[in-house]
Amino acid sequence: MSREERRRQLLGIGLRKLVERPIQDLSIDEVAAEAGISRGLLFHYFPTKNDFHAAVLAAAGRRVLRNVSPDSGVAGRVAVRQVIERFLLQVDRRRESYLALVHGHSRPVGDLATTLRSAMADRVVDLMDLPAGTRPVVHAWLAYLEDRAVLWSAEPQGQRSLPLGDLVEHCTLALEALLRVGPQARDDARGTQPEAHDASG
Amino acid sequence: MSREERRRQLLGIGLRKLVERPIQDLSIDEVAAEAGISRGLLFHYFPTKNDFHAAVLAAAGRRVLRNVSPDSGVAGRVAVRQVIERFLLQVDRRRESYLALVHGHSRPVGDLATTLRSAMADRVVDLMDLPAGTRPVVHAWLAYLEDRAVLWSAEPQGQRSLPLGDLVEHCTLALEALLRVGPQARDDARGTQPEAHDASG
Repeated sequence: MSREERRRQLLGIGLRKLVERPIQDLSIDEVAAEAGISRGLLFHYFPTKNDFHAAVLAAAGRRVLRNVSPDSGVAGRVAVRQVIERFLLQVDRRRESYLALVHGHSRPVGDLATTLRSAMADRVVDLMDLPAGTRPVVHAWLAYLEDRAVLWSAEPQGQRSLPLGDLVEHCTLALEALLRVGPQARDDARGTQPEAHDASG
Repeated sequence: MSREERRRQLLGIGLRKLVERPIQDLSIDEVAAEAGISRGLLFHYFPTKNDFHAAVLAAAGRRVLRNVSPDSGVAGRVAVRQVIERFLLQVDRRRESYLALVHGHSRPVGDLATTLRSAMADRVVDLMDLPAGTRPVVHAWLAYLEDRAVLWSAEPQGQRSLPLGDLVEHCTLALEALLRVGPQARDDARGTQPEAHDASG
């Protein structure tokens, strides 16, 4: 097995275990045993336990981000609806593991919630071709979306307060409504505050 | 010192230490030493380290909730603006400690973010006299507010993208906008979905 293949195998085992438990309970010994290698050899690929945990978390974040990608070539509102729907389904399918992933580890390892939200904000700003000044709204709307997803997925199947389609629609309209709400950050196109950075206007 | 006074003293020391570090790094020995009692006596008041940590976190949550209370006798939009402003100032004044408090501990101890958001949602629903079906929107809007607070408070003083007053106004309007966005959960007044709980209509 090449170095790259071995790393990927170890991260894959780590990701599978992350479904069952928070990262701080992820045992290096178990991962090594499952890969059929020694603990020492694992440390050859990941110098410390923290390095391994950080790499598994980063891989988990990339996986969530991939899972909530819109179809390629799609943009604007349609793309954002796809992101919303896929995010809701992702949390719904793997609620415990999602919560353990983004909220279940202590601070030294983990600001994965922050990293993921930030990456998703960049994507949505990009997909909708929004001005940079709207990013705080988009970023905070993702917190809104996550909260809706976490509470909605806790409702028993078949007794949900909203069907998936309605929740997707609501969250799409919510983003559009929030983008219209003033006052917005002064990096945006308004630039009416006296303290605006750009004095050239 | 009465039992109650001693408990309060120990929680007070715990709260002060929580400003500097996440709960899992809170040392029982230090707290006992600072109170001038033995480790054994501390365990007389809090049977385990986890019990003490849980009690400190609960006290911290109550303190945040108290800090963001509106003036007594105030209700509606004015009260909500006070809650928003006090919450933004709370996070701004104690950003690190707020983050450590609500996001800085691992899962066994901590769903304080959840508890706090839930208590604040109940309060806002109550202050604005909203129908119960709007609670998911209010709850998720608090996630929006928190995200705005955390990012805004990270901006250097004097170079903020929005002055406090504008951010308070934005967040107030955001709540009102989100409450108008359809489709809402079917516990609310619409009741148009065929699967509505109440078959009497």
